Amino acid sequence: MRRDADVAALVEAAQGDGPGKARAVARLISLVEVDSPALRDVAAALVPHTGSAHVVGLTGSPGVGKSTSTSALVTALREAGRTVGVLAVDPSSPFSGGALLGDRIRMSEHATDPGVMIRSMASRGHLGGLAAAAPLALRVLDAAGCDVVLVETVGVGQSEVEIAGLADTSLVLLAPGMGDGIQAAKAGILEIGDVFCVNKADRDGATTTRRELRGMLSLTERPDGAWKPPIVLTVATTGDGVPELLERIDEHREHLHTSGEGRRRRLARARREVEAIALGEVSRRFSHLSGDTRLEGLAADVVGGTTDSYRAAAVLLEEI
Amino acid sequence: MRRDADVAALVEAAQGDGPGKARAVARLISLVEVDSPALRDVAAALVPHTGSAHVVGLTGSPGVGKSTSTSALVTALREAGRTVGVLAVDPSSPFSGGALLGDRIRMSEHATDPGVMIRSMASRGHLGGLAAAAPLALRVLDAAGCDVVLVETVGVGQSEVEIAGLADTSLVLLAPGMGDGIQAAKAGILEIGDVFCVNKADRDGATTTRRELRGMLSLTERPDGAWKPPIVLTVATTGDGVPELLERIDEHREHLHTSGEGRRRRLARARREVEAIALGEVSRRFSHLSGDTRLEGLAADVVGGTTDSYRAAAVLLEEI
Repeated sequence: MRRDADVAALVEAAQGDGPGKARAVARLISLVEVDSPALRDVAAALVPHTGSAHVVGLTGSPGVGKSTSTSALVTALREAGRTVGVLAVDPSSPFSGGALLGDRIRMSEHATDPGVMIRSMASRGHLGGLAAAAPLALRVLDAAGCDVVLVETVGVGQSEVEIAGLADTSLVLLAPGMGDGIQAAKAGILEIGDVFCVNKADRDGATTTRRELRGMLSLTERPDGAWKPPIVLTVATTGDGVPELLERIDEHREHLHTSGEGRRRRLARARREVEAIALGEVSRRFSHLSGDTRLEGLAADVVGGTTDSYRAAAVLLEEI
Repeated sequence: MRRDADVAALVEAAQGDGPGKARAVARLISLVEVDSPALRDVAAALVPHTGSAHVVGLTGSPGVGKSTSTSALVTALREAGRTVGVLAVDPSSPFSGGALLGDRIRMSEHATDPGVMIRSMASRGHLGGLAAAAPLALRVLDAAGCDVVLVETVGVGQSEVEIAGLADTSLVLLAPGMGDGIQAAKAGILEIGDVFCVNKADRDGATTTRRELRGMLSLTERPDGAWKPPIVLTVATTGDGVPELLERIDEHREHLHTSGEGRRRRLARARREVEAIALGEVSRRFSHLSGDTRLEGLAADVVGGTTDSYRAAAVLLEEI
């Protein structure tokens, strides 16, 4: 009873414009980062207050300037009078458990702006972790009134596809050189990008990268009336090209609304989210079988050669 | 009955040195790539024949020369008279479903060597896909008598941590420049690397990269007697430094045996594998509830705001 009331008060404070707003947002996101009963309360309490923020995911190889681009987009959005949330997700670091200082420093110019809310989260490597917690963190920022929420992945190792699944609009960043063209194809990012951005466009090779990318995109089959991903050249450090980038992102948002694609994406996202939460719960049950030792015992049988992993998995399923 | 006999015959052919060996290996790996009853037969049939290959995982950002380094390691291993398997995994491409031609071309110098077996696999994005199929593919190559199996991830988006989980020895590749130092820290690869390799060491900045990396590694706390990851400079295109790299890899293998760390890793791997297979089965059951529509219906409720994803997940769990 007490607990529910606390969460409701936090959600109310997060929606308001009072002095406790930023603290309430921070507290709610901490609550959803750890799997706890409070997380379920937060999920339920947010339901009536969400669905209006536009979520933009930023992906790209290390070195393309993701953090700088995020910061430049924040500046451009604020100049347009829009409120912004930034969620920096570090799912590849189950070890250190937290985003690196460097990124926070780079964003520090926005730290005192009440129209910008920046949060980092690490997935800590648990199944369903990012998949379950990140959408809730996005909903907290949504309920707090952010017009746009930028999701940036930190680190090399993240499944870009997974982050793309969280966003309404996927922005894929590239930089001249670095063999990005072929790498883009490898990563399947041609398929996930709604808007492409060749950053560091003041360097040699920017137009070559754009040309190569355009060539590769033209090979992708798209149904009639489908969105054609634009390519924008930017220099995030100076802000050059960033207003145009924002225009393209807004156009994509408009396309999502008018085409029905936005709803299809939200349905697919909800499906994945529900499934990830349910599987996380099953995984928790596996771990707790026979006082935490059953799964270990089956693993030892597999290593010892007395069974194989499929037979062991069947035993595990029978027991829950 | 017939099916079992076929699989047994394939496993026997894969272990032999007859003309059907390569074909049997290829056929077995195809069988484990798709979730089918035959996959379970293969898993069971391989049990008595595996556990001797040394699995080396190669990870690194795009552009560091992963494919070239894989090829150079194959050459060095063959010169030492050892048989090699190469498994190129492309988990970030649920879309195109297959490794790119480029990588196959780069490996073509080994294509006619009977002591080298090269296979690609894509995970196709299904849960438990890579986690379940890749270990089996490794076991096929193991049973086929490969002394060393190199696992290379293709593409930017892969969870490097996941691939590291498949390997006995994790080799992390870097290249001069590219801001790899800080990126390495971000990705948590400092923690997963058993051997580090600064490739393209003929370029400016190689020794700087090594020094930075050494500095960062020295900050990692390690228990007494723990393995200290060495750093090797290589030029994979010419083969410079590759024999030394191989020595360090072999030393790590020796360490795994003598310290008991090898067994701990195999246990942890088996645990993850059994869990992934069991969760994959649960996921399959979710999808088939109420003629494939239950999960979609719950997702629509979440998007429509009549429930939240945690309550929807609880409903799903109750129903299976």
